[in-house]
Amino acid sequence: MIVELRSDTVTRPTAAMREVIASAEVGDDVWREDPTSRRLEDRAAEVLGKEAALFVPSGTMANQIALLLHCRPGDEVICGRGAHVRLYESGAGAAWAGVQFAEVGGTDGLFDERELESAIQPGDYHAPRTRLVALENTHNRGGGRVWPIERLRAVCEKARARGLALHLDGARLWNAAIACGVSEREICAPFDTVSACFSKGLGAPVGSVIAGSRADVDRALRLRKMLGGGMRQVGLLCAAALHALDHHRARLREDHDNAKRLARGLAAIEGVRIDLARVETNIVIAELDRVSAPELCKLAAEQGVRIAPVGPHAVRAVTHLDVDAAGIDRAIAVLGEAMRGAMR
Amino acid sequence: MIVELRSDTVTRPTAAMREVIASAEVGDDVWREDPTSRRLEDRAAEVLGKEAALFVPSGTMANQIALLLHCRPGDEVICGRGAHVRLYESGAGAAWAGVQFAEVGGTDGLFDERELESAIQPGDYHAPRTRLVALENTHNRGGGRVWPIERLRAVCEKARARGLALHLDGARLWNAAIACGVSEREICAPFDTVSACFSKGLGAPVGSVIAGSRADVDRALRLRKMLGGGMRQVGLLCAAALHALDHHRARLREDHDNAKRLARGLAAIEGVRIDLARVETNIVIAELDRVSAPELCKLAAEQGVRIAPVGPHAVRAVTHLDVDAAGIDRAIAVLGEAMRGAMR
Amino acid sequence: MIVELRSDTVTRPTAAMREVIASAEVGDDVWREDPTSRRLEDRAAEVLGKEAALFVPSGTMANQIALLLHCRPGDEVICGRGAHVRLYESGAGAAWAGVQFAEVGGTDGLFDERELESAIQPGDYHAPRTRLVALENTHNRGGGRVWPIERLRAVCEKARARGLALHLDGARLWNAAIACGVSEREICAPFDTVSACFSKGLGAPVGSVIAGSRADVDRALRLRKMLGGGMRQVGLLCAAALHALDHHRARLREDHDNAKRLARGLAAIEGVRIDLARVETNIVIAELDRVSAPELCKLAAEQGVRIAPVGPHAVRAVTHLDVDAAGIDRAIAVLGEAMRGAMR
Amino acid sequence: MIVELRSDTVTRPTAAMREVIASAEVGDDVWREDPTSRRLEDRAAEVLGKEAALFVPSGTMANQIALLLHCRPGDEVICGRGAHVRLYESGAGAAWAGVQFAEVGGTDGLFDERELESAIQPGDYHAPRTRLVALENTHNRGGGRVWPIERLRAVCEKARARGLALHLDGARLWNAAIACGVSEREICAPFDTVSACFSKGLGAPVGSVIAGSRADVDRALRLRKMLGGGMRQVGLLCAAALHALDHHRARLREDHDNAKRLARGLAAIEGVRIDLARVETNIVIAELDRVSAPELCKLAAEQGVRIAPVGPHAVRAVTHLDVDAAGIDRAIAVLGEAMRGAMR
Repeated sequence: MIVELRSDTVTRPTAAMREVIASAEVGDDVWREDPTSRRLEDRAAEVLGKEAALFVPSGTMANQIALLLHCRPGDEVICGRGAHVRLYESGAGAAWAGVQFAEVGGTDGLFDERELESAIQPGDYHAPRTRLVALENTHNRGGGRVWPIERLRAVCEKARARGLALHLDGARLWNAAIACGVSEREICAPFDTVSACFSKGLGAPVGSVIAGSRADVDRALRLRKMLGGGMRQVGLLCAAALHALDHHRARLREDHDNAKRLARGLAAIEGVRIDLARVETNIVIAELDRVSAPELCKLAAEQGVRIAPVGPHAVRAVTHLDVDAAGIDRAIAVLGEAMRGAMR
Repeated sequence: MIVELRSDTVTRPTAAMREVIASAEVGDDVWREDPTSRRLEDRAAEVLGKEAALFVPSGTMANQIALLLHCRPGDEVICGRGAHVRLYESGAGAAWAGVQFAEVGGTDGLFDERELESAIQPGDYHAPRTRLVALENTHNRGGGRVWPIERLRAVCEKARARGLALHLDGARLWNAAIACGVSEREICAPFDTVSACFSKGLGAPVGSVIAGSRADVDRALRLRKMLGGGMRQVGLLCAAALHALDHHRARLREDHDNAKRLARGLAAIEGVRIDLARVETNIVIAELDRVSAPELCKLAAEQGVRIAPVGPHAVRAVTHLDVDAAGIDRAIAVLGEAMRGAMR
Repeated sequence: MIVELRSDTVTRPTAAMREVIASAEVGDDVWREDPTSRRLEDRAAEVLGKEAALFVPSGTMANQIALLLHCRPGDEVICGRGAHVRLYESGAGAAWAGVQFAEVGGTDGLFDERELESAIQPGDYHAPRTRLVALENTHNRGGGRVWPIERLRAVCEKARARGLALHLDGARLWNAAIACGVSEREICAPFDTVSACFSKGLGAPVGSVIAGSRADVDRALRLRKMLGGGMRQVGLLCAAALHALDHHRARLREDHDNAKRLARGLAAIEGVRIDLARVETNIVIAELDRVSAPELCKLAAEQGVRIAPVGPHAVRAVTHLDVDAAGIDRAIAVLGEAMRGAMR
Repeated sequence: MIVELRSDTVTRPTAAMREVIASAEVGDDVWREDPTSRRLEDRAAEVLGKEAALFVPSGTMANQIALLLHCRPGDEVICGRGAHVRLYESGAGAAWAGVQFAEVGGTDGLFDERELESAIQPGDYHAPRTRLVALENTHNRGGGRVWPIERLRAVCEKARARGLALHLDGARLWNAAIACGVSEREICAPFDTVSACFSKGLGAPVGSVIAGSRADVDRALRLRKMLGGGMRQVGLLCAAALHALDHHRARLREDHDNAKRLARGLAAIEGVRIDLARVETNIVIAELDRVSAPELCKLAAEQGVRIAPVGPHAVRAVTHLDVDAAGIDRAIAVLGEAMRGAMR
């Protein structure tokens, strides 16, 4: 039995989820006649506290639609260091929306209103026009860091005061809400648009939403079609997403507990450094003394434990639905042995 | 019971299909670890006679990827009049690939090598650079017309001789193969890339493929990610597509028979004009004397028969999996009555 | 001595113009500190009846800026058949602004409000969004045709009623004004933006303007910079343009007379067909019986008369500042002889 | 008499230069028939050691053409911190070429091969594809820093080994060559393409070149047309550029001497900090203690000395053709007084 910790995107649908998929009521969603997709969208809009929401095939599409909604070619987008929208969307932001990014803040992906302010371009027409601030919460590359709600609000207030639009990349928004004890709705309140994924910690097989005002979501529908994201009897996927929203949200707490358990276990291994205070959600990033990340991953994989390299001497483990405490303990044991082997 | 003839995109998954969906083996396809999607892609590549294929959420994405593969911004694409890629993809070709279209030929969407030749831009740098020829087979807007295989080959040969790339928009390629008795593989042979849809006549809920050389499909994978079309446990959808490929292809003949039955029935109604020779596949386009298309559609819908307007005095009906001969007869009766009512 | 009739873009600066160039007062126009460019822009705005104008290196840049001002990627632009913006700007409209074109009307490049109406896309999000109507006056490819002022107004009124933006490609607007006896200001009145060239019939070496509202021209300034059209001590060129505006506008009447003289002379040659009623400004298009256009151009060039092929059996001659009546007579003689030679 | 030190772009044509402009032989350069532009392009190609060169209206257009030549939408470009192509071209790189930038190195704009290496994206298709390295020499925002030739070669070698294309933004290449005693040709040797400006230190009114292989320059010609940079009788501007190339290159040494003189003078003023070792060419950047940069600029301007703010507490002064040693001494005196006034 493999302990899969490379990402929370790998979860397989549960038996209950497969059942709701098989029996979903569907229609042609390109014509907006699929009842299940409409139900999911209404529900997502409600949870996120926005007027409307649109189901899309991926978080990347949700983010790209947000860039296209808020920006024109030549605009600049301020984001946290290592933001998904800049680093892991294959350069799409420049290709489709024609925007460039200004990264601010530290390696945890967060920043404050002073850093925001100093990144805003002057009005001078030689410079690109700063147009959008894109926050990521939790911040993936930053190790699943959660934006403290006061800091998030201060940054948004400053952005608003400077006339900037605001987008929240909430791929793991659900984890943030659990971790900081603030509802999704409250976290999303200061933003014009929000993206959120069902296919990560929530364990649905496919899909994300982009939520915002009715007018923005109407425009998003056209952009989804242009990007090729219009799908016909998509209710099959939306049924799974609805199920995940209803049944897998509260249990993210277990994933966070498992991540802390893993972090403590790994921190006790010689040659592994982890800042335990930074393990706030379901992501654990460990720095390795001497041992190379790919080598450790390879050794662990041979023993059935999968983690991912995120630098020459850094690895990432992500907890989720398909890993329990026993799996965590197994991972700790295997990684401990692998480290000892590698350092010999 | 409604007779739904607006499009063949509206089909709902059969019970058998729902079963294969529910039990599909899945993995994370963004990491290319979904076994079912790989099986579908291999099978589609084989049927289409290409080295490789990639599953995408829609025919629009497949076509857009083809434009991005073959063209650079500023290039011109030659297509048949009313081509889907120019008319029904929300202007995406100019937005993402930066191409403009030159429409050639007649209202049936077909053209010949002489018309192709005269549309190729001179080398002069004032003009856009002609780079790609995109054929559509069957041609949707042209009323489901099938490209005669010799004509198709002659056009492709001329394009090749002039150094142009070749893409086949095969949204309804399966219908073309059945109608002209030539295998998909042979129809696709002259083309660099081919798109084909599972969600139309084949009756799968979602999805299409883009097929071509291994190198082109490798690049397509990146473009799919950029467009936001990478989906995680997509094997659920691919299982349905595989089932459709295996079980719903041969039966398209019934749809074609039903279309002819419908065409004959409608042609006998006063005030309706149909060129029966043009009804080659599953699409029937009827011109109306005096009666407005939206009015006829409305009257028919009130009696449970749905067709679509495609012009002020033209309507379209499309046969598919969920309509049988009895439904066709009912549609003829209802439309006959509606026409008589409208003309009174 | 060569008679140069390929285009009115070939004129060389007069001695008087060279003098104003050499003594022009200049500054850094990228910082908007060039007094001569500001004077030209103010003057052009006044002549065109718009709030503001901006000097740009070419008519192509002026038109591209207009597309970028009015449209977003995925929009559709309605233009006359063979419009410069679609055919002779190297595909730039799709590449930069991401728009596609819908050509309407006949081969003279003009169209009426009914043709406009039928080209407007339905609201349906499958179709691109019609956003802009771009008229060309005079219409180059149409043989220098002038838009009758009432027709122009009717088309603009219809476009306005349908919520579309309006751009006038006035590369040869000066010729149109002279030919129809209506001021530039009146011709431009219904349009949001207008482009006009100094480097064609007016005889300046380089440059065009884009004119419109103050807000649009402010945005145009940024777009000009993005396109690389910001130039430093550009007053040198603007001085020439100012001189051209003041001294070479009224004399376009001579060019029109010369074009008619040429047309009559050519029409009398065996094997040459010209619709004299279509020769309204400074462009003459002649159809050739039997003789190939490139061959005729070659034969004439050997005798010092330069004209341009615009089709396999069609040639174009354009009158301008550097050709007088004697040159025209010489051209008629040479072309007559060349035709006789070619038909032997 | 004003001492203008805001930039070297403000120079006005000398009497001798006005003379060559007024008497320049010209033709239609869009048809490539302008003899003076061809002479300039051949000469520039020779000086830069490339097969061919193309005159363009601005350095921005030259750089944008380079991005379009080497990259496809979605690619990433590595550049030094504060590079002109990322910061001062109005976001054009993302808008037209669809690229995003990765900034590396320190605040002087330079970097080394190790920093380059660590910025190259992994092959993984989630990340953008690193495609181009763009160096700027001298580096404007870095204070006119010159790339040490060995370091430049090492970086280029590493880039080449990793399969990346290389572009040199040589807006002030002439200054670099003078400052490090290495010919332009040698500095340009490792690069695929080079841009260079005539309108900065060389004192021509307008224009730049993009130089490279014959094939790249042929493609650049089409891109220039698409961007609207094709100009008709452009020989007028090229004559000035040729004159500048022949007569104003060697004298840049004086500008560098003047910059050092200015730097020493300013460094002696209380409250001004300058790293004298960093003043290598014609740019002086001074940090201010306590005094705000806009205030100092305003006070100085009132006394006829113009410098520019480049940060809240940083100012920039640039020497050039129109400022002599006496002007420098005047600037030192005025700025000293202004600082004393501001600190009171």
